[in-house]
Amino acid sequence: MKLQALVFDVFGTLVDWRSGVAREVEHLLKAQYVDGGAFADAWRALYQPSMEAVRSGERPWVDLDVLHSEGLEYVLRQFQQDDVDISVRQELVRVWHRLDAWPEVRKSLLRLRERFILTPLSNGHVALSIALARRNGFVWDAILGAEFAHDYKPKAVVYLSAVEALRLRPEEVLMVACHSDDLAAAATCGLRTAHIGRPDERGPGRGETRPQVPVDFTAADLADLATQLGA
Amino acid sequence: MKLQALVFDVFGTLVDWRSGVAREVEHLLKAQYVDGGAFADAWRALYQPSMEAVRSGERPWVDLDVLHSEGLEYVLRQFQQDDVDISVRQELVRVWHRLDAWPEVRKSLLRLRERFILTPLSNGHVALSIALARRNGFVWDAILGAEFAHDYKPKAVVYLSAVEALRLRPEEVLMVACHSDDLAAAATCGLRTAHIGRPDERGPGRGETRPQVPVDFTAADLADLATQLGA
Repeated sequence: MKLQALVFDVFGTLVDWRSGVAREVEHLLKAQYVDGGAFADAWRALYQPSMEAVRSGERPWVDLDVLHSEGLEYVLRQFQQDDVDISVRQELVRVWHRLDAWPEVRKSLLRLRERFILTPLSNGHVALSIALARRNGFVWDAILGAEFAHDYKPKAVVYLSAVEALRLRPEEVLMVACHSDDLAAAATCGLRTAHIGRPDERGPGRGETRPQVPVDFTAADLADLATQLGA
Repeated sequence: MKLQALVFDVFGTLVDWRSGVAREVEHLLKAQYVDGGAFADAWRALYQPSMEAVRSGERPWVDLDVLHSEGLEYVLRQFQQDDVDISVRQELVRVWHRLDAWPEVRKSLLRLRERFILTPLSNGHVALSIALARRNGFVWDAILGAEFAHDYKPKAVVYLSAVEALRLRPEEVLMVACHSDDLAAAATCGLRTAHIGRPDERGPGRGETRPQVPVDFTAADLADLATQLGA
């Protein structure tokens, strides 16, 4: 069964969320010293629990701006920054819309797009995905993922709704991510899987270098994957 | 209020459905003479009634491949082509995935994309929209429209779900179409509107040259609109 489409995790796999959030937090909370990396880590730590309320059906689907905004209140208290203006809080939530891609991503996506349909399959919503794509020169064929499915990964509906929208069979679609749990969920839905090493995703040496689950492709980065796929 | 995004009708406005369908019908039904243009017109005449069953709630949302396939059976009988193979019937439905753009479209979209977010807002589904984009070199920021809304234009939910996905206000979004009824519906939802002349859309001299409703912009073609918008 020939591969037709590649679908991508975005936070971590394509963009370096930690450096971007850390840098902007230090810039925007300039009144007193805050460790931007620690702040980013604390904020990101709330990511999975916040989505779980949606995945479990406890609350209706809301986008990542809402979840990031709610998490931010908690992290600001944790870092004794309760006095931050509402305008700065709103700006901090927007930081997740202007993260930078890892260095090889843009060119590798252009190579891959010559041979495959490419879409994000992210927990980011459509407007956030557009903003990241425009900032970094990603060219997508469509925006699929959480907002299209109105649920969050790793729920099966998110992967399956993307496969359905592409009118492909799951085995014609390759899920690309630097997170083993994302790939394990995609594999359960019948998609093929590619792991991208991002050793510094959560700070130096605190990302996945190799997959912790069986995958179809293991790549050092996206350029390596493009080469392995003959793109 | 500054324009942020342009959303496009596709069949007629960006691609010349009648010439493409006519040419392929004559090629695929080569056993005996069929007037491709008349066949295309008869097929397209079933388009609005077929969507009405979805819009009214009489049946759940199904995509245009399903509606085109159902309509095709009727048109084949009408043209005394009942003996056509199933494989040819399937190929005929796929003709709507490989229509050619009007000559100025690709370059005009590239100009417009320098200044605005661009998405189709078509009754075509995601896979069909991707196929037309890839064939014609359209670069979209996302695919919105019927499949995203699970309903068909001119129902308000199709326009409003696109505005919502872009996280914009309706007046920041410009609907671009060569059909006055599409623009009238978009205007009712608060979008701004641009009419593109396509005098030959339904055959020579049988398309809209000028809007029949009030619009914000009237353009001879997409290049003219790009110029009017300073792109």
